[in-house]
Amino acid sequence: MNKIYEGKAKTVYETENSQEYLLYFKDDATAFNNKKHDILENKGKLNNRISTFIFQLLEKQGMPSHFIKNISDREMLVKKVKIIPLEVVVRNRIAGSLAKRYGLSEGEELKNTMVEFYYKNDALDDPLMTEDHIYMMRLAANEEIQEIREMALRINKVLKNFFLQKKIHLVDFKIEFGRTEDGRILLADEISPDSCRLWDVTTGEKLDKDRFRRDMGRVTESYEEVFNRMREACV
Amino acid sequence: MNKIYEGKAKTVYETENSQEYLLYFKDDATAFNNKKHDILENKGKLNNRISTFIFQLLEKQGMPSHFIKNISDREMLVKKVKIIPLEVVVRNRIAGSLAKRYGLSEGEELKNTMVEFYYKNDALDDPLMTEDHIYMMRLAANEEIQEIREMALRINKVLKNFFLQKKIHLVDFKIEFGRTEDGRILLADEISPDSCRLWDVTTGEKLDKDRFRRDMGRVTESYEEVFNRMREACV
Repeated sequence: MNKIYEGKAKTVYETENSQEYLLYFKDDATAFNNKKHDILENKGKLNNRISTFIFQLLEKQGMPSHFIKNISDREMLVKKVKIIPLEVVVRNRIAGSLAKRYGLSEGEELKNTMVEFYYKNDALDDPLMTEDHIYMMRLAANEEIQEIREMALRINKVLKNFFLQKKIHLVDFKIEFGRTEDGRILLADEISPDSCRLWDVTTGEKLDKDRFRRDMGRVTESYEEVFNRMREACV
Repeated sequence: MNKIYEGKAKTVYETENSQEYLLYFKDDATAFNNKKHDILENKGKLNNRISTFIFQLLEKQGMPSHFIKNISDREMLVKKVKIIPLEVVVRNRIAGSLAKRYGLSEGEELKNTMVEFYYKNDALDDPLMTEDHIYMMRLAANEEIQEIREMALRINKVLKNFFLQKKIHLVDFKIEFGRTEDGRILLADEISPDSCRLWDVTTGEKLDKDRFRRDMGRVTESYEEVFNRMREACV
């Protein structure tokens, strides 16, 4: 298979179908724009499972994504899209870069759910963008930006409620969108503990990639805990 | 006189009138969040003159500021306001941090004039803010943000046209606003070659603080050139 793109945690391959790609979920964990790197056994499998679960959950709620089906433990078949180079971040609580950038402490719930856009560009360290910047750089039309914002908020509503039933706070998450050949915008990439902040409601324990970023240990064990709780709902 | 605030290029003093402050324009030049510092003889006097000129020009066009009157070469009497900790940047062309942040080259004219907000906080390196961030941190109400944005665009319109008559491109500029005791928002701080990018229309020569930031020499000479061209209009 022809490799289309090698990302930090996934590789994208062409398939025999010109309208489909195959995502391969790797065990590589990276943080701080690649300055920190490790291999976490089974992470790829867990993220493939968790992402699959979430894409199916969203589909049931009328929010389609690029997801078609699972192929193997580490492989997901998806609709071919061209990724819009924006990292779309939805925040329910203050944490991570938001806290650091403005000198705030982590944890406080936001009165208004926040949607942020970052330019997906490693060489530039994924800088924050306003909608004016996105438009100036012709990354998306104004109507597309509004569509993406609304989709992000709807996805948040579903996932926040879902995780809360599992006694997990969805603190924030990063998603990416792509354009199909006929110009539709689809949720793409993955949604997993690599791209979400997930805090246990009772203990406050982190169940996400911050365990890797902050050397807290038990990273994949926490991802597994998330997956186990997610599945419970499904039976 | 009681010192209220010592800034990088100005000092603010109380006066006998509880509704007025005195601004003292220093010769200190700083850049890169204070990492670079120098004394440029006469810069304070020039910036006081240029700011006075601009505040008077804006007033004539129906845009009041905190400016009351000139007291001396380096002293300006202003209305007492509480500064809103936002650096409001208006951009007509791509330059400076906008170019650097998104990997763009300097000089291109923007199709749409851009207004950006930065959190005025040295310890945090004045980070970029979206309107959502401003609102989250309660720096300004949503209506105030819109009022500030509109004032910034109106100020730009007047100054851009004015400088163009003097064969100078107003590339971008930074302004600050303050609240009076009765809650009105007023243009405050200064407008000078320290806070504007000004490029000679014919030669492209920089006539602003970038000459200091980039070690191009002839800094105050350029400020003086700006002032001389400004005055010509006035006769």
